[in-house]
Amino acid sequence: MNKSAIVNPKIVEDYTIKYLVGVDGGGSGTRIIVTDKKLKILASAQGDPSALGQGIEKAWRAIVDTLARAFHYGSIPVPMLSECAIGLGLSGANNVIWKNEFYMRNPGFKNIIVDTDGFTTLLGAHGGKPGSIVAVGTGSVGMVMNDKNERKDVSGWGFPSGDEASGAWLGLRACALTQKTIDGRRADSALSDAVLKYCGKEPSQFLNWLGNAGQNSFAQLAPLVFQAAPHDQDARELLFTAGKEIEQMAKTLDPNNELPLSICGRLGEALIPYLPEATRKRNQPALGDSTIGALLLIAEER
Amino acid sequence: MNKSAIVNPKIVEDYTIKYLVGVDGGGSGTRIIVTDKKLKILASAQGDPSALGQGIEKAWRAIVDTLARAFHYGSIPVPMLSECAIGLGLSGANNVIWKNEFYMRNPGFKNIIVDTDGFTTLLGAHGGKPGSIVAVGTGSVGMVMNDKNERKDVSGWGFPSGDEASGAWLGLRACALTQKTIDGRRADSALSDAVLKYCGKEPSQFLNWLGNAGQNSFAQLAPLVFQAAPHDQDARELLFTAGKEIEQMAKTLDPNNELPLSICGRLGEALIPYLPEATRKRNQPALGDSTIGALLLIAEER
Repeated sequence: MNKSAIVNPKIVEDYTIKYLVGVDGGGSGTRIIVTDKKLKILASAQGDPSALGQGIEKAWRAIVDTLARAFHYGSIPVPMLSECAIGLGLSGANNVIWKNEFYMRNPGFKNIIVDTDGFTTLLGAHGGKPGSIVAVGTGSVGMVMNDKNERKDVSGWGFPSGDEASGAWLGLRACALTQKTIDGRRADSALSDAVLKYCGKEPSQFLNWLGNAGQNSFAQLAPLVFQAAPHDQDARELLFTAGKEIEQMAKTLDPNNELPLSICGRLGEALIPYLPEATRKRNQPALGDSTIGALLLIAEER
Repeated sequence: MNKSAIVNPKIVEDYTIKYLVGVDGGGSGTRIIVTDKKLKILASAQGDPSALGQGIEKAWRAIVDTLARAFHYGSIPVPMLSECAIGLGLSGANNVIWKNEFYMRNPGFKNIIVDTDGFTTLLGAHGGKPGSIVAVGTGSVGMVMNDKNERKDVSGWGFPSGDEASGAWLGLRACALTQKTIDGRRADSALSDAVLKYCGKEPSQFLNWLGNAGQNSFAQLAPLVFQAAPHDQDARELLFTAGKEIEQMAKTLDPNNELPLSICGRLGEALIPYLPEATRKRNQPALGDSTIGALLLIAEER
């Protein structure tokens, strides 16, 4: 990135603003980067979750705390919040009520723009330019922005019915396969062994684990599916099914393959070998992550 | 049924026992039948849920209240509990701690036997004789008993990861298809129209419905899948997939087709047209329901 990327006069011409802050906030943590007005990275830090669904006040506290830590790590005297312009990609920002309340509780940042973490992932992946992404982690979402800045998204409907190809989606299906192994509907397998070991060995412990498991717990099992895939055909087929779900998302976002595509997120990257060939070939590594996208959100006027 | 079915001397020879009671208790209600010692049905009633997972005291209260109502409906003066022998098929009775506590809180029945509602469904379906069942409702479970009274069960691992072919399983998948229709991954369809109409028409209302939906809510959508199947290929395929899941359960229970098979439950019966042919042909209508099975549980010593 270079200075020419900055086209937001509110920030360029406001001499009281010294720092730009990019925030990626989700249900498992917050990541922050700090740059100067030329977008030179000065500091970064990670902190507590700031998904809006967990509470607006909690989100702001996590963000302000993590930002203070970033300045501390970067050996920069902590400035006044009014010297900072902040862009945020937050899980839950598609809920207008939460987003408005978040704006209203701004603790003093001079400029602030909030959008979904899906959109900042998209901005980061293609450097703010038109393109599409499919982001796969605990949940999944696909998003496209064309050259008219028009957006569309797919998936992201949540657990347990949606978020195809996500960690929770894979974990739910890994449990179903394991249950079938235990009660004799399926042969013993590497995946079932691994799931049982993780969830407590005895079927009764597994049953108890299942009774208490939510989206995050199921997502914890996703790595076991990848590890078992070489030895377990059902696990392998599950990953190829996830790959097809990702392809369907990508095709819906950009039916004529006109824009660059990035499959993002730790699980998205792990699933690349399981994508149908045409989609695998179209995939381009993301230029930057969601914190970079959040920075572009505030640095570029859009 | 006739008197020869009664082989339990504890009951036959105990002249203080006047009535036999059969109870089917689940998460949505309790069904009770009352017979004399010749198994002649005298009265029946339905009442509040008595699944053990909702609380032992609550279960007993629902059972005693429903029994009193049955005697009332049958114009029989309510007897002392000590004049009744009671057999119960209760959801949650596979949990030994709950089952023991249930026995300990017996409010005064002279004889009492508790087992799972799956087992009483099996007993009812085959008149207490060896056989197998696959019972499909909000959840699903398969069970077999051979001529040595040995049992085995499959499925029944619960929501959201298991209970293949069940109402909640179908509803979860109906939502996934509807989500794909809304965000453009799938063409408009009869199923999606019906689900959206049920859950609140606007996608935002649907999202809100999804956020609050549990096993029972998803199961409410199952009838929509059957209604849409003639007009929606994905819905039809979903039902055939459910049919294959039921076949897999039946084959696991009785690999050599040695025993009679009954597909039970309201949804199980609705899925019969979607079973693979061989399994569809093997299916025999149940002789009696779970309350009859509960009665046999106490009437026959096993």
